Amino acid sequence: MTQQLPADAPIGVFDSGVGGLTVLRALLDQMPHERFIYLGDTARLPYGTKSAATVVRYALQAAEHFRRETVKCLVVACNTAASVGLDPLRERFAPLPVIGVIEPGAQAACSASASGRIAVIATERTVREGAYQASILRLRPQAQVSVRAAPLLVAVAEEGLGTGAIAQLAAHHYLDGLFHGASPPDTLLLGCTHFPMLAGAIRAAVPQGTGIVDSAVTTARAVEKELTRLRLVRQGGAGDVRFFATDGAERFARIGSHFLERPITPAGVGIIDL
Amino acid sequence: MTQQLPADAPIGVFDSGVGGLTVLRALLDQMPHERFIYLGDTARLPYGTKSAATVVRYALQAAEHFRRETVKCLVVACNTAASVGLDPLRERFAPLPVIGVIEPGAQAACSASASGRIAVIATERTVREGAYQASILRLRPQAQVSVRAAPLLVAVAEEGLGTGAIAQLAAHHYLDGLFHGASPPDTLLLGCTHFPMLAGAIRAAVPQGTGIVDSAVTTARAVEKELTRLRLVRQGGAGDVRFFATDGAERFARIGSHFLERPITPAGVGIIDL
Repeated sequence: MTQQLPADAPIGVFDSGVGGLTVLRALLDQMPHERFIYLGDTARLPYGTKSAATVVRYALQAAEHFRRETVKCLVVACNTAASVGLDPLRERFAPLPVIGVIEPGAQAACSASASGRIAVIATERTVREGAYQASILRLRPQAQVSVRAAPLLVAVAEEGLGTGAIAQLAAHHYLDGLFHGASPPDTLLLGCTHFPMLAGAIRAAVPQGTGIVDSAVTTARAVEKELTRLRLVRQGGAGDVRFFATDGAERFARIGSHFLERPITPAGVGIIDL
Repeated sequence: MTQQLPADAPIGVFDSGVGGLTVLRALLDQMPHERFIYLGDTARLPYGTKSAATVVRYALQAAEHFRRETVKCLVVACNTAASVGLDPLRERFAPLPVIGVIEPGAQAACSASASGRIAVIATERTVREGAYQASILRLRPQAQVSVRAAPLLVAVAEEGLGTGAIAQLAAHHYLDGLFHGASPPDTLLLGCTHFPMLAGAIRAAVPQGTGIVDSAVTTARAVEKELTRLRLVRQGGAGDVRFFATDGAERFARIGSHFLERPITPAGVGIIDL
């Protein structure tokens, strides 16, 4: 028997539902040798309408699940959980590296923008919490951040309609106002894990040359960077994914397959209680 | 001081959020002299993803609020709560009349349909619970019921986009399949309180001559019929409405105004704990 190396331990990816599967997709593209455990807390979604204290409690419960699986890193792929839960998770589970979707997205937007005018679309809750605005302004205090909640884009993505005419109209509905003025933003940050599903429609709705920053891809890069720093990158072998949800294996598999762009079967989704 | 007549007592209308305001709108049109109390359990929505036991518990808690307000009738304007909660509510609060949205909608669809081929659009949860199918088949065992979940229509309505191009495309997306065959349904039942917001788009997406049954209007008629039977119809005076929610007065007022087609101000929404 060979001894298991720490680098062979899986990476945990946590979300309130299926949206975080776009982050997992980016992680799989970025690090094909890694092993992943994805957990969607589908029984208790959406997190966006719950109090911060409740979301923190749910995130800590989910992290306990990942601790039992001895993950080497935890990715919080849920905007709401990342905006309130990172500090409590880091404190409770230190020295486990915990990476959220907000900081990497904000950093990438700040790097991508020449003018400092950055637009952000996100869910209503994320907009109200101001997490992206705060993150961007911490990194670049002179930035002009315009933010819009785009809840219909979430529903369009969940219906698997990210590439059609409805997606195009919905993208225009939200983006026309943000890019309307004389000095429009030069960068658009997709501040919700559902939005990469509508990447084409979004690109077609913004002025040519606008930089589009996808927090899924930037988060995947941040995870690889952190694992490299910790010498925890798995060096070879076939990657794999195990899926867990707290309710609804059939729906998770059906909608999740769109998001992951790989087939997920209901039998491959373990239903657990947190 | 004049003695308060039983007919002067308010009618309670309960929903998990703002969708039930389309039922309230129909009630206000039908019975302009009545006084209403509307309660949206916005802190705990959506009910659709919760277990039946939890939804029953929430509905009973809401009904306690209405009991303190001594309502003369309780309208359950939430499909999920109506599909699991009517019997427990009737038992606990007898002899209070409790009227849900499902039975009146099913009855109206059965009356409207000549062919017995009835299409129903609803939320995913309502479809999965089969409440409309069961109700229709109880009344008309030979009916052919085709049902489709239309979650995107809910999001379109919540965004106040019920009359635009997005609504038209979304309506076609769900309805084309239902009305495609050689013997299409002759009746469409709108099995979600959000859908009356898209009435025009829905009408344009079904074959001419299709009967469209709106459970908001049919529920309002059922309430008036029951109050008439009980001699509890208020005979004059100005009607009024008081609004309560369990979270988010601003959002309730903003989105609710679309649904009610009357202005609601945040200051006019009482926030309560259940």
